[in-house]
Amino acid sequence: MNTLWKQQAGKLFADIEQLSRDPHEGVTRESYGRGESEAIACLSDFALTHGLDVSHDRAGNVIFQRRDDNGQPALWVGSHLDSVPQGGNFDGLAGVIAGLLCLCRQARDGVRSALPLRVLGLRGEESAWYGKSYIGSRAVVGGLAEQDLKLVNRFNQRPLGDALRALGADLDAIARQQWLIEPEQFAGYLEVHIEQAESLERMGQALGVVPGIRGNLRHNRVRCLGEDGHSGAVAREDRHDSVFAVSELIARIDARWSEWVDAGQDLVVTVGTLGTNAAHHAVSRIPGEVAFSLEMRSLHQATLDAFHTLVLEEAGRIEQARQVRFEFDKRIDTQPAAMHGPWIDTLQRHTRALGWQGVLTPSGAGHDAAVFANAGIPSAMLFIRNQHGSHNPHEAMALDDFLAATEVLYHSILELSA
Amino acid sequence: MNTLWKQQAGKLFADIEQLSRDPHEGVTRESYGRGESEAIACLSDFALTHGLDVSHDRAGNVIFQRRDDNGQPALWVGSHLDSVPQGGNFDGLAGVIAGLLCLCRQARDGVRSALPLRVLGLRGEESAWYGKSYIGSRAVVGGLAEQDLKLVNRFNQRPLGDALRALGADLDAIARQQWLIEPEQFAGYLEVHIEQAESLERMGQALGVVPGIRGNLRHNRVRCLGEDGHSGAVAREDRHDSVFAVSELIARIDARWSEWVDAGQDLVVTVGTLGTNAAHHAVSRIPGEVAFSLEMRSLHQATLDAFHTLVLEEAGRIEQARQVRFEFDKRIDTQPAAMHGPWIDTLQRHTRALGWQGVLTPSGAGHDAAVFANAGIPSAMLFIRNQHGSHNPHEAMALDDFLAATEVLYHSILELSA
Repeated sequence: MNTLWKQQAGKLFADIEQLSRDPHEGVTRESYGRGESEAIACLSDFALTHGLDVSHDRAGNVIFQRRDDNGQPALWVGSHLDSVPQGGNFDGLAGVIAGLLCLCRQARDGVRSALPLRVLGLRGEESAWYGKSYIGSRAVVGGLAEQDLKLVNRFNQRPLGDALRALGADLDAIARQQWLIEPEQFAGYLEVHIEQAESLERMGQALGVVPGIRGNLRHNRVRCLGEDGHSGAVAREDRHDSVFAVSELIARIDARWSEWVDAGQDLVVTVGTLGTNAAHHAVSRIPGEVAFSLEMRSLHQATLDAFHTLVLEEAGRIEQARQVRFEFDKRIDTQPAAMHGPWIDTLQRHTRALGWQGVLTPSGAGHDAAVFANAGIPSAMLFIRNQHGSHNPHEAMALDDFLAATEVLYHSILELSA
Repeated sequence: MNTLWKQQAGKLFADIEQLSRDPHEGVTRESYGRGESEAIACLSDFALTHGLDVSHDRAGNVIFQRRDDNGQPALWVGSHLDSVPQGGNFDGLAGVIAGLLCLCRQARDGVRSALPLRVLGLRGEESAWYGKSYIGSRAVVGGLAEQDLKLVNRFNQRPLGDALRALGADLDAIARQQWLIEPEQFAGYLEVHIEQAESLERMGQALGVVPGIRGNLRHNRVRCLGEDGHSGAVAREDRHDSVFAVSELIARIDARWSEWVDAGQDLVVTVGTLGTNAAHHAVSRIPGEVAFSLEMRSLHQATLDAFHTLVLEEAGRIEQARQVRFEFDKRIDTQPAAMHGPWIDTLQRHTRALGWQGVLTPSGAGHDAAVFANAGIPSAMLFIRNQHGSHNPHEAMALDDFLAATEVLYHSILELSA
């Protein structure tokens, strides 16, 4: 079996990589765009050749199932088919191929189970394109709002609604926040994904089981407003310098973050963008304006809320001391998600059966599984070790590790759908 | 006389403001660019209409003198004609107009003196354009190097050499560091300028006499190089975050600066530009690169040198602790300058004759007068009160204050050139 899977998986990964190779580097599969659609076409060919049914939901996500599917509530296995621009070939794609190989094997072996297996190839998971994550899975569970359809692709300025319409999606149903697959059709959701960190690599483990997925709390743009002035002519005590104010705030955030980590809290904090106003900054001008982004991620919503409160307090203190003003834009929340306890055990047991430790690897990055879990569907995730980080062309996955993950997935499905 | 001056000055300030009004706000007179050239054309028209000679040195600076100038070493009065982007109308321009009004009055009155008066309208004083200050006056005293001609205008990427050549300048003479006006032609240099701080405004004094001018030490671009990464998937201890590193460095600089000021040192420090790399920063990416500028100013070179050493030490410590790298570009120095003692007395005496106190106001900002003083030319400066700081569109100067300064200048010139 392993030999057949190896052959099938090797060819699917290679074919889809070739279809979506970026002219510069890595692969590019645009959300609701070319590379993503070509991956769906390639997988659909494979599925039809192997006697499976192929259909689409009303948001362009692809569904693979057996011809003898009994129509009962199903165990769904899925992941996404888009990538970041110039990303790697495995982020997302590996999970869909793993599901599809399991489905083929079930069909070929004539497996009978209470819950049928269905495989979901999701679109639009990466926020790099429309500034919003998990668009495809949110659409499935009625979690996309009408205003989201106006989000614009940052590379070609095309609104999401137009891209969806071109794929034949039902914009009315999406805007009405209908579930596009009936909720009672979901007995559960399983996802295999490469790890986006390198913790498995460091531990020497091919597989990890995910206990939870970090949520995040973001301000895309915080402004600090002080007062411009001549750099030589204004005394220290008369300055309202936005750069010194923001530097103090970020240094304070860093110090508090360090304390929280030392105290055992799950938390990461990132100021990914930072800049004085290029329209009127100068080497010899006291900077009157700085803007920055702020993101914190944690497995626990309470941690996010508490750290956010602390950031606002620090900002308030600095406003007083330095006579500057901080303006925080709208707070954007993505809830953390806990994976389904009994299924974590199942995945660990089958991982150990292959000789690996079944280590728990919390997910720092977000995943479609978080959307399904937060919609009330029992969900679980299995990570595959990745040697070179994520969201870059050098992302790496050994085919043997992938086959081990598919083996664990196959046996877990048999057990959970029995 | 005051009535005529008032009329002439009012019209010159208004005409030049209109020529150089920025579409957004304030005035913009680009170094070696449009607004600056139009100001020179407008003043030249005025000078020719009033029977004066107009010529240019080999760096595009404009020289006004009487037709009956005896060619002897002269007393020079000058200032600059460029502005920062979206700056005010008086910074620089006021000093050239004051000199020109004095020259007109001398010509009209047929004043005879041992030292003729010549007025110098300098280009390229503001560092906002080419990242270097006092380009025009440095060129006059042979203080511009060949490599300076490769400095690039940060708004249009045009090299300084090209801009100078387009104005007919003699690049060879500049690169050979020849004096463009023979040094023995300088009996001295006087400059009237708005104060760039608000100390005169606070003291209720229209005029101040400058005892010395702060020097500065700059790095136009310091880069901090860390490592990009997924904001959710990399643990705190594995990060090499350039934003947290730079924020710590700036916060440390701020703290040490505060200590030095408390200890009585003359020092101001500014980080005027700061930013992550817009080509690949993102809210959810650990920032691998930040660039910023660093400027310190003091009346004392030893203070600048010592604080600079301290900054490098702090940066080295942070490099070790956070595994990032700081790259400092070329250090650029402008020496502090002392004004000529006996002439300080002369300016104070004539200021007091108008009923003002003749207060001493050290200059935090740099001025062309510092270039001439450091080239060995006796130099002195008179400040005019300014209500709204400098290098901003709201900079303010009362016409009556300007006329008082011109009166002091006129009588000082008569005395010093007798």
